[in-house]
Amino acid sequence: MICKLPSHILTSVVNTKPFTIVRGLRRSRIRDCKMATTSTTTTTTLPSMRKVGILGGTHGNELSGVYLVKQWLKNKAAVTRKNFETTVCLSNPRAVEKCVRYIDTDLNRVFTEDNLRSSQEDSNNMYEINRGRELHAIFGPKHSDAAYDFLVDLHNTTSNMQNSLMIHNTQDPFVVQLVRYIVDKLKHLESNYVFITGNAYQTTRTVAKHGLGIEIGPQSHGSLIADVYQKMETITLHTLDFIEKFNEGEVFNACTIEAYDIIDKIDFPRDKDGEICAMIHPAFQFKDWTPLKPGDNIFVTFKGETISYQGDKTVYPAFINEASYYEKGIAFWVMKKVELSAPTLQMKRD
Amino acid sequence: MICKLPSHILTSVVNTKPFTIVRGLRRSRIRDCKMATTSTTTTTTLPSMRKVGILGGTHGNELSGVYLVKQWLKNKAAVTRKNFETTVCLSNPRAVEKCVRYIDTDLNRVFTEDNLRSSQEDSNNMYEINRGRELHAIFGPKHSDAAYDFLVDLHNTTSNMQNSLMIHNTQDPFVVQLVRYIVDKLKHLESNYVFITGNAYQTTRTVAKHGLGIEIGPQSHGSLIADVYQKMETITLHTLDFIEKFNEGEVFNACTIEAYDIIDKIDFPRDKDGEICAMIHPAFQFKDWTPLKPGDNIFVTFKGETISYQGDKTVYPAFINEASYYEKGIAFWVMKKVELSAPTLQMKRD
Repeated sequence: MICKLPSHILTSVVNTKPFTIVRGLRRSRIRDCKMATTSTTTTTTLPSMRKVGILGGTHGNELSGVYLVKQWLKNKAAVTRKNFETTVCLSNPRAVEKCVRYIDTDLNRVFTEDNLRSSQEDSNNMYEINRGRELHAIFGPKHSDAAYDFLVDLHNTTSNMQNSLMIHNTQDPFVVQLVRYIVDKLKHLESNYVFITGNAYQTTRTVAKHGLGIEIGPQSHGSLIADVYQKMETITLHTLDFIEKFNEGEVFNACTIEAYDIIDKIDFPRDKDGEICAMIHPAFQFKDWTPLKPGDNIFVTFKGETISYQGDKTVYPAFINEASYYEKGIAFWVMKKVELSAPTLQMKRD
Repeated sequence: MICKLPSHILTSVVNTKPFTIVRGLRRSRIRDCKMATTSTTTTTTLPSMRKVGILGGTHGNELSGVYLVKQWLKNKAAVTRKNFETTVCLSNPRAVEKCVRYIDTDLNRVFTEDNLRSSQEDSNNMYEINRGRELHAIFGPKHSDAAYDFLVDLHNTTSNMQNSLMIHNTQDPFVVQLVRYIVDKLKHLESNYVFITGNAYQTTRTVAKHGLGIEIGPQSHGSLIADVYQKMETITLHTLDFIEKFNEGEVFNACTIEAYDIIDKIDFPRDKDGEICAMIHPAFQFKDWTPLKPGDNIFVTFKGETISYQGDKTVYPAFINEASYYEKGIAFWVMKKVELSAPTLQMKRD
């Protein structure tokens, strides 16, 4: 057996801190499941949401978001609400045109302080850095009062993630209340997951005051699956409805939601030249969010030998065999179950 | 309903003629199913097969073939047989390196007489045309005695094609006998299909005297599914075993196989700007090879309206929603069932 064991530590992001503090926020709570309590009785008030952005095509070959945005750009009625302004935007038009994830670098990782220090385009820059600056000029600046109130970013995956809601700020009661609202609306689908991406992850949506990623799969990059498209449309419209209700003064009672927090990212086994020498095991393929127990098979080598999970407790896998993560050295993510709680939420009246 | 009806005639290839006549061949027969007969009593003899090539990565993001070829390049024992020489080759190394279908143009369409008129590389050419000339120099020249006897080319698809064997020359008893042999070996899998690609289709494997494409899916481009990899390995090794048995003098009795012949290629419905305005209907997705009857739903528009199949008889769909065919304007292929017959086959002794 020539394979090295998987490298276990590529990124480890636990108990993330907020990337920005919005005035008036009370911190929500993150707990391992067994410790969770929901005793919050106070009410958090936040200013109304005036500007909301919908981004598709941050990765140009994730076509549900690309085509939803194209539809909404032609006919804005579906995303128009009375109490806020909606901006619909194809985030990476050159990558969309070529139907590739990106032209030079992953747009969904470029929103770092270094990259955003200047707002000028620079022909020496990678395309996505310049495009990131443009998006920052439209939807930001980050951490400022002028920034958009909310950004929703639409993604697809080749893994069996079903309807997944990605949050990067566990301390944001607005987002926790929003995902509770969406999950309630989608209860009949019985395959909805909320997960925490970590704040090291400088995504497009971190430009706004609050943000949500919608990640639905499986869908091959460069193709459309009607079910996936329709679920993404539904979740986006629920998001807008929630923001509208909030702006109308609806009170959202204190809540606790089940979520998954990232523990680790596991690479494929590789040979001495760094080449992949095993694949996801057939018994593990498409088992995103299914408990992964110590001893379960996770890889099979090209010669047919199996490799099992050597962890010491049950965890939850995500992004199993996502095609665009091969280049990042990620075969799957390892998550743990947590609970997030948020206090009662209401719009702050002037 | 703003969509135009699907354009029905993109390519229509029926009753293809052989691209090359190999000396000593008796023509096999192609018949619509109801007319098939298997009364052949004569024996066809062919020279032994001395040189066999295995190609992977003709499309650089179809990873089963890429990784199989990489394994066999490291360890040739599995593809070595006593009675012929095997050459294993990564057909499009630059596309493999970038994990894309192609760099400039589809390598699997460049083997035309025009492109192959010169064997010289030309820096003004598209990369794949130069690479095609290199492959032609190694495995060809086409239609010559010097050409390889057999080329097998490994492909993946995002559609649910299962284990599909692609032939381009229905008049070739060697290939008809080979696919009968493979289908017999795979009977336990119950999801094997033989189909005819047509001779307008100047693929990589047309360089050799005889050729077979192996097309397995669903597998997202840029990823590996262990089951798919293992099935492709099995079918390739059965191919080599058949050639070995033939070279050893085994007699293959006259046979008839069920196959699918292409009638049409159907595009997605498009709006006045040429943009896709509908997706494959959920009831049709993944239904490759399942009978498609007049009135069955095939598309759903972004607004949720359904579009049904307007043909006048039951047909068989293939390549439903193949990601790389969006740019070719193909949503799926329409096939009819045919039977191919071949006479008894035996190696010609000197």
